[in-house]
Amino acid sequence: MAAVSLIGAGPGDPELMTRKAWRILGEADVVLHDALLNAEGMKEAAPRARWISVGKRAGRPAPEQAFICKTLVAYARRGLRVVRLKGGDPAIFGRLAEELDACREAGLEVQVVPGVTSACAAAADLQASLTMRGLARSVVFLTPRLGKGEEEPSDDHWLKAALAADTAVLYMAGRRADLVCRKLIEAGRHARTPICVVENAGGTGVRMQTTLMEVARHGLPAMEGPVSLLLGEALTLAQAVQGSEPARALEG
Amino acid sequence: MAAVSLIGAGPGDPELMTRKAWRILGEADVVLHDALLNAEGMKEAAPRARWISVGKRAGRPAPEQAFICKTLVAYARRGLRVVRLKGGDPAIFGRLAEELDACREAGLEVQVVPGVTSACAAAADLQASLTMRGLARSVVFLTPRLGKGEEEPSDDHWLKAALAADTAVLYMAGRRADLVCRKLIEAGRHARTPICVVENAGGTGVRMQTTLMEVARHGLPAMEGPVSLLLGEALTLAQAVQGSEPARALEG
Repeated sequence: MAAVSLIGAGPGDPELMTRKAWRILGEADVVLHDALLNAEGMKEAAPRARWISVGKRAGRPAPEQAFICKTLVAYARRGLRVVRLKGGDPAIFGRLAEELDACREAGLEVQVVPGVTSACAAAADLQASLTMRGLARSVVFLTPRLGKGEEEPSDDHWLKAALAADTAVLYMAGRRADLVCRKLIEAGRHARTPICVVENAGGTGVRMQTTLMEVARHGLPAMEGPVSLLLGEALTLAQAVQGSEPARALEG
Repeated sequence: MAAVSLIGAGPGDPELMTRKAWRILGEADVVLHDALLNAEGMKEAAPRARWISVGKRAGRPAPEQAFICKTLVAYARRGLRVVRLKGGDPAIFGRLAEELDACREAGLEVQVVPGVTSACAAAADLQASLTMRGLARSVVFLTPRLGKGEEEPSDDHWLKAALAADTAVLYMAGRRADLVCRKLIEAGRHARTPICVVENAGGTGVRMQTTLMEVARHGLPAMEGPVSLLLGEALTLAQAVQGSEPARALEG
């Protein structure tokens, strides 16, 4: 294996990891992992490795990205085989670029292993397709949330992408979903556009099917796990069949 | 397992299947599979099942979607455990909606298992991120290709989505890449926007890094495998490190 393996763990269920991720974990000396939904289950892949959490957890300050990069490089320079285990797919909202840069600057050999991103896991939970012949030929993954110190190229830059694509999946948008849906409606998305809410994609949690208008008015119930919002006409056919919460009927 | 399991096989490498997909394959009686890059390797998961190809192959007519749906339902009604093994993730350009509908109409219990979509596998091959803090907060997956009998809601509907998102990954766009890139430039994407070409994501094939302008002018080399086009400023940092073909330098 390469000195550093940047691996997508998928949405949280250890069974939704790829076989390649599981195999490489078995060869690791050190695993730097995100706050994964089921890190314990994943540890079975590498019981003898040192597992170090570098993820964000509620109520605790998250390690800075620069610290994660430094730690990664430091372990690899000591000759240890390092896995950086990231939630979902590393190329989608995974800060992959920063970690690749750090490894390249240090002259370390790197490999990247893709994973199941939470939008796909959420769609599977809902038994819905994100694309649909004649109805949805584009799907955008985006986040309306700005990182610390991050600036928008323009006001509500994300809205343009959410409007232009047939289907949109919003990452990290659970907390201010009411505001997000109001903005989408004001910008021109139809108030009755179907929207699905999935907490802990690939696991158990809230599974809701409603409309932009309803979320804009009433917001969402409090949820602890990561939330995906999926919207667009393709979601009309969603069936919120799995998870712990009953589906809400779609607005007429 | 459910009567019918609609499973994402990932981009082609059997190691890029999820552990869940592999396990469920092991319980299947019948596997209806797409034209996967390495079906032989996947057969190890279910050596005793009957494997039936329903995918498109060069030079042979593809089975109609309606035929696939009928076959799926017919086997399940005989009490056989059926896996429908689809390339990539079933919710992204996988005709999932039609197959779900057919199963629901037949009253069959269904489960959907997500997979690694080829955009993510291509990004891993390139060692590139599709999102990047401060630079790319949205990524759209789309296809400019119209299916048989499919109509555009408006002229070049797909272009709007490709323009609004920071990063765009184009599926099934290898054959007329020159035309696609010309349209992107005419519609307003900068001629020097980085574009990467990945044949057989997650496997081996062409890995190229160039610009919209270059592809618009010269097209792409002939390729046999499925092609992903990835474009946007985030791709500047791509390293076309894997695969059988050398990377082309990025235009100044």
